[in-house]
Amino acid sequence: MIAPVRWEGDRLVLLDQTRLPAEEVERQYAAWSEVAEAIRSLVVRGAPAIGVAAAFGVALAARQSRATTFDGLLADLEIAMKGLAATRPTAVNLFWALERMRRSCLAHRTLPVDALKGRLLEEAQAVLEEDVAANRAMGAHGATLVPDRARILTHCNAGALATAGYGTAGGVIRAAHEQGKVALVWVDETRPVLQGARLTAWECMKEGIPHRLIADGAAASVMARGEVDLVVTGADRIAANGDTANKIGTYGLAVLARHHGIPFYVAAPCSTIDPALPSGDLIPIEERGADEVRSFAGHQTAPAASPVFNPAFDVTPAAFINAIVTERGIFRPPYDFSR
Amino acid sequence: MIAPVRWEGDRLVLLDQTRLPAEEVERQYAAWSEVAEAIRSLVVRGAPAIGVAAAFGVALAARQSRATTFDGLLADLEIAMKGLAATRPTAVNLFWALERMRRSCLAHRTLPVDALKGRLLEEAQAVLEEDVAANRAMGAHGATLVPDRARILTHCNAGALATAGYGTAGGVIRAAHEQGKVALVWVDETRPVLQGARLTAWECMKEGIPHRLIADGAAASVMARGEVDLVVTGADRIAANGDTANKIGTYGLAVLARHHGIPFYVAAPCSTIDPALPSGDLIPIEERGADEVRSFAGHQTAPAASPVFNPAFDVTPAAFINAIVTERGIFRPPYDFSR
Repeated sequence: MIAPVRWEGDRLVLLDQTRLPAEEVERQYAAWSEVAEAIRSLVVRGAPAIGVAAAFGVALAARQSRATTFDGLLADLEIAMKGLAATRPTAVNLFWALERMRRSCLAHRTLPVDALKGRLLEEAQAVLEEDVAANRAMGAHGATLVPDRARILTHCNAGALATAGYGTAGGVIRAAHEQGKVALVWVDETRPVLQGARLTAWECMKEGIPHRLIADGAAASVMARGEVDLVVTGADRIAANGDTANKIGTYGLAVLARHHGIPFYVAAPCSTIDPALPSGDLIPIEERGADEVRSFAGHQTAPAASPVFNPAFDVTPAAFINAIVTERGIFRPPYDFSR
Repeated sequence: MIAPVRWEGDRLVLLDQTRLPAEEVERQYAAWSEVAEAIRSLVVRGAPAIGVAAAFGVALAARQSRATTFDGLLADLEIAMKGLAATRPTAVNLFWALERMRRSCLAHRTLPVDALKGRLLEEAQAVLEEDVAANRAMGAHGATLVPDRARILTHCNAGALATAGYGTAGGVIRAAHEQGKVALVWVDETRPVLQGARLTAWECMKEGIPHRLIADGAAASVMARGEVDLVVTGADRIAANGDTANKIGTYGLAVLARHHGIPFYVAAPCSTIDPALPSGDLIPIEERGADEVRSFAGHQTAPAASPVFNPAFDVTPAAFINAIVTERGIFRPPYDFSR
């Protein structure tokens, strides 16, 4: 199984996703600040995987702490949680995981400090294991939406690499593939960071899932040819009304799918839902550096002084989403995740 | 003025567009077969520029010919025209230019062979000069469609580089800019070959046109933010009913523009119209190599064995095109270019 985030001995181990597909390089982390940098620099990416990595970041901060009292430990953890929270603003799983670690810490405040540190590592392990279980449940639910001989279009990477394993949208595809229902996966390359080309195509090769890689601009054309039966993507944050932030390009795909009469599905664990946010226009959208668009692998693709607009995400209004698949089942519009 | 195709002494000179924006390299051509290879490998690209280059390719074939009779010369030219025609299937300007050179040759069959060779060079020069004049006329017509403080989105490169100079869609933008009406040009980078990033952004920098480069997937999001007043693109072939083949990604943009209530315009010379073709589904769509999508500048972006679908063009149905701008004026639907 592809395991992009795992604990080994006294270290967090991340598969360096910036090096895929050319090289499979694992990196070891013993300090929370290095985990924060790994999240920022996309060594680990994908909303659920970021959450799991951040949980282990807090566990590492506990191990690094020299505090001998609960208050001292909590103070050290708050610094780490603040640093981890500042890495990427859009994926809510990050904040969800940090909050879960904080709650676990407070719930076990009467434990001796060393035992509490152990408890926090167990909590991070639980976050990881529950993520994989949620993805398998999501896969089982989502596969019921997939017809026989399905041609599925997906964007970015919401596969095993975006999670602790198995994947969200990728999990739906994986489960449908295990049931023999997948004729073809259309993989959007997903500029500027090319998560589709680098990661989703790599996963498809690993698992023998039939696929074809396309430039993002070709998706509409493939739809018009009648060669897409459904679109499924992951999510970085889902507002209470079902509006969904996901990788830039998702919103356009949803509009195009609707135009062509193709169902558009989102698959994400409940940890991606932000019940406190009434609608998607309130989701903060991360803007990343200009050189993600102006260059590739150190090679200039545009004039160095050309101004760039590089939003990492867009928001798909709930009205364009035919169903949201979570580990608890399939939700249909009108969505209400406010409780 | 940016002049990507020009005649100098006894040579055709092309600005090597595969090297932009990093380097401005000119290449000289004395043989038609080298011109064919330059078209195939995208040293020169853009429907009108391909037509102009092909016309000079025929003029070069005439200069290369050792025939002493009209029939011998025509036989040599037919070989060259067949080779030039086999380079790229979609842009009709190529076939239009070759047919024009053939007609000129036949019309002057009574000239001595050397004089006829000179006449063919003059004809190619006329094709070039008429292209620039058509673009300036198109710019003047098209600029009337551009409101004050316009934010214009364009795809691929239909600028000076795609023509003998000034540009088609780029000419409309240029003319509107000369009238002080352009607040911003949103430049789609246009994967896989990045004509937007490499060429359109380069032209904007050269001319001081305010612009922002975006990943193709960001266009829908920019539209949803209310930051696009119109879309204008070029065309590679326009069927008699107005259906338009253009760079892959154009069709999706047209659907998205319609969804957001944004006018979508096409600018192209009459030589891009194929009156013999009743509708767009009959336009042959070139599929290019997988490595355009799987790699960039020699750097692998996807698994080397991942299958790819790489259509270079798509077809936008006439119903999505609010106006077609030609050198003869502005056409509105329903289009009828059958005569």
